[in-house]
Amino acid sequence: MSEGSRVWFVPDGYLPEQSSGDQLSHEAICVLNTSVEQAQLSISFYFEDRDPVKDVEVIVPPERTRHIRTDKMDGVEIPRGVPYAIRIESSVAGTVQCSRMDTTQEALSLMTAMAHPVER
Amino acid sequence: MSEGSRVWFVPDGYLPEQSSGDQLSHEAICVLNTSVEQAQLSISFYFEDRDPVKDVEVIVPPERTRHIRTDKMDGVEIPRGVPYAIRIESSVAGTVQCSRMDTTQEALSLMTAMAHPVER
Amino acid sequence: MSEGSRVWFVPDGYLPEQSSGDQLSHEAICVLNTSVEQAQLSISFYFEDRDPVKDVEVIVPPERTRHIRTDKMDGVEIPRGVPYAIRIESSVAGTVQCSRMDTTQEALSLMTAMAHPVER
Amino acid sequence: MSEGSRVWFVPDGYLPEQSSGDQLSHEAICVLNTSVEQAQLSISFYFEDRDPVKDVEVIVPPERTRHIRTDKMDGVEIPRGVPYAIRIESSVAGTVQCSRMDTTQEALSLMTAMAHPVER
Repeated sequence: MSEGSRVWFVPDGYLPEQSSGDQLSHEAICVLNTSVEQAQLSISFYFEDRDPVKDVEVIVPPERTRHIRTDKMDGVEIPRGVPYAIRIESSVAGTVQCSRMDTTQEALSLMTAMAHPVER
Repeated sequence: MSEGSRVWFVPDGYLPEQSSGDQLSHEAICVLNTSVEQAQLSISFYFEDRDPVKDVEVIVPPERTRHIRTDKMDGVEIPRGVPYAIRIESSVAGTVQCSRMDTTQEALSLMTAMAHPVER
Repeated sequence: MSEGSRVWFVPDGYLPEQSSGDQLSHEAICVLNTSVEQAQLSISFYFEDRDPVKDVEVIVPPERTRHIRTDKMDGVEIPRGVPYAIRIESSVAGTVQCSRMDTTQEALSLMTAMAHPVER
Repeated sequence: MSEGSRVWFVPDGYLPEQSSGDQLSHEAICVLNTSVEQAQLSISFYFEDRDPVKDVEVIVPPERTRHIRTDKMDGVEIPRGVPYAIRIESSVAGTVQCSRMDTTQEALSLMTAMAHPVER
């Protein structure tokens, strides 16, 4: 039995333009790889008014988690203040959750959702 | 393998009556269409004490996301301060997530959930 | 194709003991019934250290949503400050989402999750 | 029909380093066991840069919920300020939801997600 799925979607991505205090407004794609193989992720970013940025590569080692900050990625710079969405494909089955910290106003706010899997 | 489902549900919709600061209390239906076809959405709104408003049409172009503000839709005006719920049907398989920003009190709060799919 | 499932679970229920401002800390079980039949809900509440309270009945009319406040139910009084969990069974297939507003501290915070369905 | 699944995943675990007011920043793994059998949980914790801590045991009695604080567990001490992830395996089918309260800044913020099940 595989430990999750290989393709995941997150429709609601957004990097707030403003931050307050010492916490930067940000989002993280959190991936869990419980297998004994390395997971090769291919992450694509979709927008409202421009072509997608496809196949940004990230590695998750065997039996590790990675919480990938979307504002600090190699290979893509997501603009702040712009709606986006995410497609994650992995070489091995795993699980994906995406969270946002918004510090636009003076206290931080969090939200999170499990990504939506394609079962295969 | 299709990239999601064609019918989605969000039982907890609510537009807070009040806002503070420069952020308006609002909700967004976030849709990701990774296909190369245009997605024709038909969105219906259900209430506690009145008949539903059915089949409001929205387009999501191929390989695009749209974050649809429910307080700024053509074809329906959702009243503030009233519980509602949402059914989204799409001509092509995609994914849907719904989020709320509540600024009733002096700092904003966020919540989000993936919509619930009917698998077909 | 049915529009959802008939049995749903929410493991994380909690009514905070304190509130501030004019918003009462509360939770709501949000149910969407898109069918043309009335949905008869049977809701059970589970606790950490006492027997469950089973089969509290609630009606959701055809093509309606109901956002059921767990602090204002007929048939059960959920104590504040105590972990609980919820099982919802419905006579017709529908969808369920559960949300909390916590106003313990001076600005409100929201969280929400789709309930977990048993597919049948 | 079983009431949930036996294996669940939560990719986004994080215990904030700071707290303010009288609410400690924390996370809870919330488990609902509606069966008439005791559920024996085996919980494993995954990190970004060290080996996992596997098979921490927790009991959930029949027809009970347990909201398990990850900062107060016997058998593992999760460091604060470090990303982690969780795998929960149960001897009987149940449901799992994981929530965070973050009080780093002066008002609390909540987030929650249903854990992702492996169907079996």
